[in-house]
Formats: sequence, structure tokens, C-alpha cells
Amino acid sequence: MQFSFSDRYTNTPKSFLNELFRVSRDPSIISFAGGLPDTNLIDLDGIRAAASTVFEEKGRTALQYTTTDGYLPLREYIAERYQKRLGIPASPEEIQIVNGSQQCLDIIGKIFISKGTHIGMESPGYLGAIDAFSLYEPQIHTVPLIEGGPDPDSFQELIETRQPSFFYGIPNSQNPSGTSYSKDRRKELAEILRGSDCAFFEDDAFGELFFDGKPRLPMKHYLPDQTILSGSFSKIIAPGLRIGWIHAPAPVLERFNHAKQAADLHSNLLSQMILHEYLRRNDLDHHIRQITRVYKEKCRHICEHLDSLGLAHTEPAGGMFLMATLPEGLSSMKLFSEGVKAGVAILPGVPFYPEGGGEDTIRINFSSPSIDEIDCGMERLGAALSAL
Amino acid sequence: MQFSFSDRYTNTPKSFLNELFRVSRDPSIISFAGGLPDTNLIDLDGIRAAASTVFEEKGRTALQYTTTDGYLPLREYIAERYQKRLGIPASPEEIQIVNGSQQCLDIIGKIFISKGTHIGMESPGYLGAIDAFSLYEPQIHTVPLIEGGPDPDSFQELIETRQPSFFYGIPNSQNPSGTSYSKDRRKELAEILRGSDCAFFEDDAFGELFFDGKPRLPMKHYLPDQTILSGSFSKIIAPGLRIGWIHAPAPVLERFNHAKQAADLHSNLLSQMILHEYLRRNDLDHHIRQITRVYKEKCRHICEHLDSLGLAHTEPAGGMFLMATLPEGLSSMKLFSEGVKAGVAILPGVPFYPEGGGEDTIRINFSSPSIDEIDCGMERLGAALSAL
Repeated sequence: MQFSFSDRYTNTPKSFLNELFRVSRDPSIISFAGGLPDTNLIDLDGIRAAASTVFEEKGRTALQYTTTDGYLPLREYIAERYQKRLGIPASPEEIQIVNGSQQCLDIIGKIFISKGTHIGMESPGYLGAIDAFSLYEPQIHTVPLIEGGPDPDSFQELIETRQPSFFYGIPNSQNPSGTSYSKDRRKELAEILRGSDCAFFEDDAFGELFFDGKPRLPMKHYLPDQTILSGSFSKIIAPGLRIGWIHAPAPVLERFNHAKQAADLHSNLLSQMILHEYLRRNDLDHHIRQITRVYKEKCRHICEHLDSLGLAHTEPAGGMFLMATLPEGLSSMKLFSEGVKAGVAILPGVPFYPEGGGEDTIRINFSSPSIDEIDCGMERLGAALSAL
Repeated sequence: MQFSFSDRYTNTPKSFLNELFRVSRDPSIISFAGGLPDTNLIDLDGIRAAASTVFEEKGRTALQYTTTDGYLPLREYIAERYQKRLGIPASPEEIQIVNGSQQCLDIIGKIFISKGTHIGMESPGYLGAIDAFSLYEPQIHTVPLIEGGPDPDSFQELIETRQPSFFYGIPNSQNPSGTSYSKDRRKELAEILRGSDCAFFEDDAFGELFFDGKPRLPMKHYLPDQTILSGSFSKIIAPGLRIGWIHAPAPVLERFNHAKQAADLHSNLLSQMILHEYLRRNDLDHHIRQITRVYKEKCRHICEHLDSLGLAHTEPAGGMFLMATLPEGLSSMKLFSEGVKAGVAILPGVPFYPEGGGEDTIRINFSSPSIDEIDCGMERLGAALSAL
């Protein structure tokens, strides 16, 4: 027999994420190619203690079915934190829990994209978003990231000529580039969008990870009714729990909730309760300061190495990634192969450019490797570069 | 502004599941409308002990990102159980972990359904499947469930005239009807499908819950390369962990894995490890016997009540649901409203019939209420029936 697969499938480019995970699993390779938070910074004892309390106090309730929207005390926590940390209005009714913020990409894709729908995103853009959206067969248009965020002229032209259903962006410490939108650019983009029917889908997976600890006002602040804001506990608590959320206007949330229910009924309740108990009994800001102190140091270290290797690179103010540009004529795909031979993995920039380009760029993750691994890995990268 | 939602959304009927969950939460209402396993049968102490071991032995690994396919020892367990219990071939490479088997419905919908794709399912059919598939805008054709499974003539006509991409069915203790396919019907359907390009999507959420404890050979046995088989731990261990799986032929699994990755990267790792540790140290068959003993008794009890109320009903051999037929001229929607007034909730059959019908049918869940609640609830149902 021949299975009769949907059109969407044959139209989708093969994912690079698998290759990425494969390389991440090879212990002989020092990987800058993955996207893992530093395992050592996961507060195992704190989470274990929270789990123990949940089993004690919630009992079987924690293991039964629940409602699609998510555990109310956790949604209350998220809403309160938005108010306190960013001063933006948020109520638990506006928050929906998901399986890590990746699920927001799938569900927003589902509720906004028909075949051929125009959508916009940054170039380079997040690979997981390109993958998730592509399965709904949109026409993806990109706006180049320049100093301070997406190029405003190109952005305005996109909004006016294509009328995209939404523009997807990561204003804080973007994956893959490591850059952040400036305050002025946020205002400027909001002004361009105001009055249009284009939603801004703001992925804020890294907003808590600025090295200086200072929060940046999200697009949601400048354009509240038009912005769909997603967040995640993966980078600040633990990815394995698969808990993220969306903060969206009512008409979006209603459809989002329906689609989430159809997708998997609800997110893991035990994890939601453990997470809430953990947040109730620990100082999240203190924990985040510990993370950003380490990431800042690792990032500085890598930048110094790249400088000595003569590679230009972005200067992240936070997050987990940066991008470097190779000397003219050098292909990042060749460097990837040569690097793996030398025992180091970097991620070629090509898959991050859905409209082409980026052949001379590489993405480097600085959160996962240790300082020693950074030193050794960068030495191997230097050897691979010399070999080419 | 006006959000530009996808076509799929406006084409989808409003979900009944929300109303169902709302009624389930009202403590003054005795509910036969939900689909919860008996909370008291969740082995809290066993799961807590397994969790404790996972934190001790796996540490931070349990809280980090992992691969999309799922925790290998858990997939090995599932494959071995298929071999031992049903004698069907299964290797861990053929198994993919998901967030409860509901996620299989969404992902199979995504990889098989383009707008207008023909698919087949049973009538009545599982509501969560109708919901999940509908968001991909298929043309749903139904085959009536008669004695022993789907009507073979109607099934054959569907396969021949519509060439559906897949037929979705629940051969064991179906939700909502509570009926099971006979052995002969399974063979007959397999023969009809053999040589066609229609896959059989076999949802086996209830196959472990036969009251007599005897396994039934799945469609996968009769039609191995053409059957996509899904399973779940929700009904036999705990739904809140949101862990199910799919056992599918390689070309399906490859696309399934890609779509799962785009949807949410991977399922909750902590829960996968807890579940595997629980299965390693406990006798699952013994645990399941405890569950089916209770469900058999509850089912028998409800059937006796329905008999005294003069309502015809199916005779489940397992699972968690049965269907009853109301006296001529009585509407199940009116009985739902009258029932809620009297403090009892049943589920009208209408939403289970995507092509219409079922106005005089109701679905009754027997796993969740206690024997006392069954007595009291059935009394209230009798009062509601009399009032009409």
C-alpha cells in the first residue's frame, strides 16, 4: 500500500533539529550546536522538595485529568509576575498553559494559517518556528534583523503589501542571533502595526535572561490588544517539565484553548503543580541571577575566543545564543563537517533563513558547555578553520 | 483590529468538551457525563515512590531536554508488552511517545489530512477525534456501528467509493458506545482494507480494560503494515501524567516524529521516567485486575438501574462507557437540561454523530462515580425522565 499523506507534509523541508540532537548526544563532540540550558543550574533539590509536597498535599488530584486552560494557581503566578516585573496588565483568564512555548508556535500556526496565508518573521529566524509554521503551508516573508531589531522600512513594506496574519519575532536575546530589539524600534514597529490587522506574535523565551537583570518592556506593552505573548519555564527552571504559556487577547485565546484541547486535552498536571509549588517556596529572581551570572561569563569567554579567531560576532545582552560570521568565501556547512571531524559542533546559519542566505553565518550556544569545554571546543574550532 | 484567523477555525463546530468539563466540576451534580478513570484506583503511593527513585537516580537528566521519540526504556517496555500480551511484533524504534493518545489524533490528522481529504470513522464516534480531525478540514464519512463492529457493507462501500486516507476506529470498548468489534469483524474489515491505500488508525485506549481480563487481537495483528495503533497509560496508570504512544509503520512514524517535534519538541521527560520506574517495580497486570474488577461491578450496577428505568443500552465487555437509548420521542438534549436541574449529568449522543442522528441516545460513564453515587444519580435520572 501507499499511505496517502497530506500535502503539507511533502511541502515541508527536512528538519535540521534531528541532526542537531544527534550531534548533541555524541559525548566526544563538544557542542555549541544545541540549545540546552546549563544542566548544572537546574535546582534539583528544590524541584524534588516541591514534588514531595505536591504528592503529600494534592495526592491523586495531581494525577487525574484537569481542564485545558491549566492549573489556576500557576496561571495566577504568571499573571502577577507580568504585573510586577513588567507592569503590563495580565489576569489568569488571559493565560493558557502549554507544553513549553514550542507548543504555542504549533497552535498559533493552526489557528492563523490557511494554505497560502502570508506571515512575517525575522531573518534569521527561529528554526522551531519555521518548522512549526511550515506544516500549515504559509507563505513566509522575512524582515532582516539589523542593528536594534527588524529593519523598519522592510517591516513596513511587508505589513502594507502582504497584509500578513501575524509577524513572529523574538525581541529579547533572539534565537539564533542573540540580538535584542531597542526600545525605539519596539515603539516604531508598534506604530507601524497599529491600525493594521496584523498581530504581533512575541516569543519571550529569553526575556528573563538579560545579563544586567533589567527587564525590557515587551511589544505587548506598546500594542496590548494586538500582541500574542508567549513565555516558558524551560530556560529558567527546567525544560524537561515542558511547561510554557501564552498571554493572548480574548478572541485568540478562545480559539487557542479549543485547539489545545483537540491537540492533547491539557498539559501535564503533576508538572504544573510541582512548578507552582517550586515558585511558591523559592526566590525566582535570586535563582535567575545565578543563571545569568554564569551565562554572562560563558558568553564573554566565547566572545573573546571568537575575537582571537578573527570571527565577527553579535554581542548578546542575554539569552543563550550568539551568531558569528565566517571570513569571506568560507561556507558554514563545510565548517560544520570539518568541525565534527575535529570534535566540535557549531550550527550552520542556513536553515535559519527561510528565504535563503546566511551561508557564511554560524549559531553558537553558550549556555550548555562548561568554561573548560568552551576553551577546548574553541581550540578545535580554530583547528577546523585553519584546515579550511 | 480584526485578527485574521485561518479558515479551519470558522469551519469547526463548537466543542462540547468544555461544557462537559464544567458540569464535571460542579460538586452538587452527579456526573455520568465525564470520562475520568476512578480517582481512587490511581496508585498514588506507587507513583510517589517511583518519582522519588527517579529524582535519586536520574537527577537533573530527568529535568533537561531530551529527544522527540521519547524515553527509550519506556518504549522498550511498551514494545515488549505488545509482544507478550498480544503476540504482535513491536520494537522500540516503532514506538513514539506522545502526550496521551489524544495527541496521536492531532498529529495523525496533521500528516494525513489536507483540506477536503476523505477520512472514515465510526458512527457514533469519539468526540475528541471529531474535534482533532475537524481542525484539518477533512470530509468525514461515517460507518454505523452495528452488532460486532462497523457495518461491513457500508465499510466496504466507503473504502471503494471514497478512497479515504484512513479509517479511525476504537475496536475495544469504544467511546462512546461501549461496544467491541468481534473477531470475525476484525478479520472481515482487514480483508476489505487489504490492497487498498486506506490506513486503519486503531485507537486502543481501552484494550487493557476487558472485564474478563482476556486480550483481544488488534487490527494491527490482521493488517500489520497498514495499521497505526495508539495506546495510553491514562486509563491504567494516571491521566495527569499525559503519556500515551503510537506504534506505526516506518513511513508514518518518520512524519509523525517530525510533526511531534514541531508541535512540542518532546513529551514530559520526568513523567516518562516516573512511569517507567513505576512499571519496572510494580505488577501492571495485578493493578489492571483491580481496576477491571471495580469497573465491572459499576457497569453491572448501572445496567441494572437502566433496566429498571426501561432504557435499552449496550452491554460493554470492558472500558468506561456505555450508551443508552431513550424511549421514542424523548430528546437527549432535553434530558440533559432536565437532568442537570435534578442534579445529574448524562451526555447527549448528538455530538458523537458527525453526519447527524443520535438524538435519542445518551453516553454514560461508569468508571468515575462511586456505587453510592450511581444509586443516587440513577434515581435522579429516573426523576428527570418522569418529569419529561
